[in-house]
Amino acid sequence: MSDVKNERGWRQFIRLVQHTKPSKLLLGIALILSVGTTLVGLFVPLFTINLINDFSLSSLSTGRIILLVCALVIQAVASGISIYLLNHIGQSVVAGIRDRLWKKLLLLPIPFYDENQTGDTVSRMTNDTAVVKGLITDHLANFLSGTISIIGSIIVLLLLDWKMALLMFIALPLAAVILMTLGRKMHQVSKGMQTETAQFTSVIQQVLSEIRLVKASNAEEVEYQHGKNGITKLFQYGLKEAKIQALISPLIGLVIMVLLVVILGFGGMRVSSGALMAGDLVAFIMYLFQIVMPMGQFSEPAQ
Amino acid sequence: MSDVKNERGWRQFIRLVQHTKPSKLLLGIALILSVGTTLVGLFVPLFTINLINDFSLSSLSTGRIILLVCALVIQAVASGISIYLLNHIGQSVVAGIRDRLWKKLLLLPIPFYDENQTGDTVSRMTNDTAVVKGLITDHLANFLSGTISIIGSIIVLLLLDWKMALLMFIALPLAAVILMTLGRKMHQVSKGMQTETAQFTSVIQQVLSEIRLVKASNAEEVEYQHGKNGITKLFQYGLKEAKIQALISPLIGLVIMVLLVVILGFGGMRVSSGALMAGDLVAFIMYLFQIVMPMGQFSEPAQ
Repeated sequence: MSDVKNERGWRQFIRLVQHTKPSKLLLGIALILSVGTTLVGLFVPLFTINLINDFSLSSLSTGRIILLVCALVIQAVASGISIYLLNHIGQSVVAGIRDRLWKKLLLLPIPFYDENQTGDTVSRMTNDTAVVKGLITDHLANFLSGTISIIGSIIVLLLLDWKMALLMFIALPLAAVILMTLGRKMHQVSKGMQTETAQFTSVIQQVLSEIRLVKASNAEEVEYQHGKNGITKLFQYGLKEAKIQALISPLIGLVIMVLLVVILGFGGMRVSSGALMAGDLVAFIMYLFQIVMPMGQFSEPAQ
Repeated sequence: MSDVKNERGWRQFIRLVQHTKPSKLLLGIALILSVGTTLVGLFVPLFTINLINDFSLSSLSTGRIILLVCALVIQAVASGISIYLLNHIGQSVVAGIRDRLWKKLLLLPIPFYDENQTGDTVSRMTNDTAVVKGLITDHLANFLSGTISIIGSIIVLLLLDWKMALLMFIALPLAAVILMTLGRKMHQVSKGMQTETAQFTSVIQQVLSEIRLVKASNAEEVEYQHGKNGITKLFQYGLKEAKIQALISPLIGLVIMVLLVVILGFGGMRVSSGALMAGDLVAFIMYLFQIVMPMGQFSEPAQ
């Protein structure tokens, strides 16, 4: 991932962003809020543990519940401010880059336009710059808070019950690798189907747009066969896709189910045997969410 | 949803599918397997309950674990066969409809082609027919097994612990409604951004494709202002989008967190107070998955 070429790309990217002079103060505040939000999120399950373990029907501690609600609300507000600031910075940077690029484009000599297709240049101006915004707004903060959330959760889990934590750290990445591999395979298959459909579309398109010619030369029967071939090919490809889907989808379901049974089953057994308290099991599940959710965001491609 | 017009549409749709003579035997087998898979899925958490509650360090019942593994594997195989059969039927129906439509299209008189754009007709031939396949392959079986899964899980949950089940049945739909409303709002915002970007693209496109004219008439400055206006408008729209996102995304996080705390917290308390066993809490969480996952599938639009 981080070979020399990529690193130079990153440095150039950062220089490009710096040229638009984004407010470092705002960026700092946004990132601090984002990190703060994550830290509060790490404490929420700990609150819950005490709430559950010390629970007796007579005393549902009102004070603690109020504290928990406050923590959640503060977290939401801080997160909102951070999202707005990051979006603001991202939009400013994109507007700055677009402005520079547009000025430059209008000054470029005609030969540039002979060599480059207008469509490509337009795409640089609109799409490529929008990707920059996504990197700043979504990925920068997600990466930071996601990393903190994952590392923090792992530490807390190890402190809570290292045996169960270890089981999870083996089962979870294993399942993630299997699911990602299967998911990619599924994606490939559906891409292939799109290509086949596009080919079929172009055959149909061609015949129908010259229907007068077809009719004038009594070629309906020939063209019917053409279309029929396309239909059959698409049907056969569909069966191929079906076979792969019939293998992959139940496998995905199986992996998720096994993961649930292993982690929850082991946790439940430890509660039954008295090694773990009910509140700790609940906190475990909450931390699980805090590890899995940012991982899901990481695996989303940066376009 | 099911007014008179829609019902007639459905009847016509079923008649259309019947014309292609799909194998009722295969369809029956597929649906029976699909229902069977769902029923096995309903029993898996019950297995787990016993496994956890009767657990003592000396006797990790091997027999039960083997039974559980067998159930999961049989479930996956049956599900695979069912998926293949449904895909096969779906593909056959689509191929049949395409064949009939193609034959018909080639026989239609020229005036039809004067009145209808070729693009629309091509789209009927490729996309609209593919939607039929999706309805048969994905939605028919999903609807059947999803309904069974949801109703079955609800019944088991009520039998396990009706107090916790009731709490869940209030909290879950409430959260679902809030999340869906917020999700739709987010979708609208990103749609609006797409429209704005498309407008900007067309401005840029127009200027760049006539760059010779622009340069010949020394209109660079004017065109720069044109582009600059577009950039500013996009920036302002981006800030509007940022405000809404900064409101919505933390709200979504808050709703999910509150849902987790309420359901898991209440469940954990009941285990702490002895009203519920650890295994039952784990089973509860598993059934929760079995209710939420098909609901997610239902809410996916049928294209």
